[in-house]
Amino acid sequence: MENLTIRWEGDELGHAVLLDQTRLPVATEWLEVRTMEEMAEAIRRLAVRGAPALGVAGAYGLVLGLQDARSLGTADFLARTRERAARLAAARPTAVNLPAAIARSVRRAEREAGSRKPGSEILRALLAEARALETAERAACERMGELGAALIADGAGVLTHCNAGALCTVGIGTALAPLYVAARQGKHLRVFADETRPLFQGARLTAWELERGGLDVTVIIDGAAASVLRSGWVQAVFVGADRIARNGDVANKIGTYPLAVLARRHGVPFYVVAPLSTLDPDCPDGAAIPIEERAATEVTHPLGVPAAPANVRVFNPAFDVTPAELVTALVCERGVVHSPTAEKLRKLLQG
Amino acid sequence: MENLTIRWEGDELGHAVLLDQTRLPVATEWLEVRTMEEMAEAIRRLAVRGAPALGVAGAYGLVLGLQDARSLGTADFLARTRERAARLAAARPTAVNLPAAIARSVRRAEREAGSRKPGSEILRALLAEARALETAERAACERMGELGAALIADGAGVLTHCNAGALCTVGIGTALAPLYVAARQGKHLRVFADETRPLFQGARLTAWELERGGLDVTVIIDGAAASVLRSGWVQAVFVGADRIARNGDVANKIGTYPLAVLARRHGVPFYVVAPLSTLDPDCPDGAAIPIEERAATEVTHPLGVPAAPANVRVFNPAFDVTPAELVTALVCERGVVHSPTAEKLRKLLQG
Repeated sequence: MENLTIRWEGDELGHAVLLDQTRLPVATEWLEVRTMEEMAEAIRRLAVRGAPALGVAGAYGLVLGLQDARSLGTADFLARTRERAARLAAARPTAVNLPAAIARSVRRAEREAGSRKPGSEILRALLAEARALETAERAACERMGELGAALIADGAGVLTHCNAGALCTVGIGTALAPLYVAARQGKHLRVFADETRPLFQGARLTAWELERGGLDVTVIIDGAAASVLRSGWVQAVFVGADRIARNGDVANKIGTYPLAVLARRHGVPFYVVAPLSTLDPDCPDGAAIPIEERAATEVTHPLGVPAAPANVRVFNPAFDVTPAELVTALVCERGVVHSPTAEKLRKLLQG
Repeated sequence: MENLTIRWEGDELGHAVLLDQTRLPVATEWLEVRTMEEMAEAIRRLAVRGAPALGVAGAYGLVLGLQDARSLGTADFLARTRERAARLAAARPTAVNLPAAIARSVRRAEREAGSRKPGSEILRALLAEARALETAERAACERMGELGAALIADGAGVLTHCNAGALCTVGIGTALAPLYVAARQGKHLRVFADETRPLFQGARLTAWELERGGLDVTVIIDGAAASVLRSGWVQAVFVGADRIARNGDVANKIGTYPLAVLARRHGVPFYVVAPLSTLDPDCPDGAAIPIEERAATEVTHPLGVPAAPANVRVFNPAFDVTPAELVTALVCERGVVHSPTAEKLRKLLQG
């Protein structure tokens, strides 16, 4: 599968190209992004979204933000790098991948600056760093897909929430990667995709990419997932993650936590699939994860159409936290961690 | 509060007037309904909805369906009554109130026919029966409101799902009646209203009528209810019911069952408020309740706008079943039944 979300064109003076996910499934439009401000805006309005893809977008965005600084000397370029990095990292607060990828690029700049390289060379190194991140994230998707596919029996039903697929990564996805690999292995699957309010990313994105990949997908409203779990039609739930605390608590799209509670009630395993880059060792537990609240209009004007009284009060958190105790296993590129705990995750991160 | 949903104008040759709820909250439009077919269509497309209101709509609808039969003699009129009743009762399958109210009218016709009354007089009796049902349902709302308000403390937060308010009854509602009465008693409340996909009846209807009634309402997406329950912001969940089996299992709008599971997890009482007319003694348990499946376009085209790939497969049940064990108490006009069981409901029905 080709990279569906974000790619870079040209050398370090080139630009990024994004699939505008706000237009799916009605239109497939690619955006040329030529400045860091355009990248931050694309991130904020969710033209590109999903934790792993946000990391890559951040790394490329930082390159864009430093193109006009390439004639600066080492120290000035490094100061500019840190200033731009802080601005870009603030575009969205919950996924750790965005600030983590940007921090990784800043560390690369610091190393290059330590060798007294001029701005033009550090800029080139930052593009190499971003490309390396893209390659690593892509490989991580493949590996998560292989590990996760072993958890899916031929003929199984699978439930997923939001979009944790190719459209949230630069590869075959996180939670959907095991489904693509299982299908590739010849297993027959039936996938139920929560539509995922408020932005319909399950109906718009997951259904789109699974159909495109030849999988059997049925869209349900979020409130019907409990009935599907109760019916016995699904043998596993697969979701992604925006940030995983070091105790194993998982921040993911709003609506994930109730799904985990219901999966437990009905004895259905609940799998979280996420690359190591989503694990935040600086975050002790779910309570420490900042939960982004988004605009009321996402709720009052679904798809732009008014569906509530004008100016009604709205609470619109974009994420919720699933406690580690509800996670059957965490699948990452380094292995499958059953019943994740702080101790198990610490060992995983140590390799 | 005036009757917001359905009223009758004129004598037995008059007509019904409905608030077209599909247009709320953007427009407040009243429809004149002059034939039984128009009433069935209004019921099917949810211009009038909600279990208690559907009963009254059915009773008035049957009067409309028999106006052209008023010159028939006793036996022919009764035969026509039974035939029309069967057709109208099929308009929606899940709420018991629609067939139950129509059956009540048929029994009235049978009694009148037993006295050898001509069609014109039976028709007049059927209007009286419908008006009596409206009056009784309205009084039931007031009584449920008083009983339920005693369960709400001053300063409490309350969560509700779909619309079980004035707009689903001919009075002050079922699940919302306790809120209106508590507010009337001077209690301050904060209400969280699930938007309730697929038809946004919480955002469109509940938010509209609560704001109109001067209550403090906050709209959330269905997937955010778990976060609100976990936050400690609400001290009670109040929902209505479309049918209650004799063991206490509750069919209500899709998304109710997961709410009950989450309320239990977070120690928040889960109250079902419904008139006795919603109790179906012929139905042994939830598994015997027919669950209406509605059109895929409700999911693929929210508010008429495409939000999923064209022709994607959809599963769209309109209701789910909450097992009696998750119901803290059932509030009806005859009292509050804590931890409902078949035995307690049998006693309740015996009065």
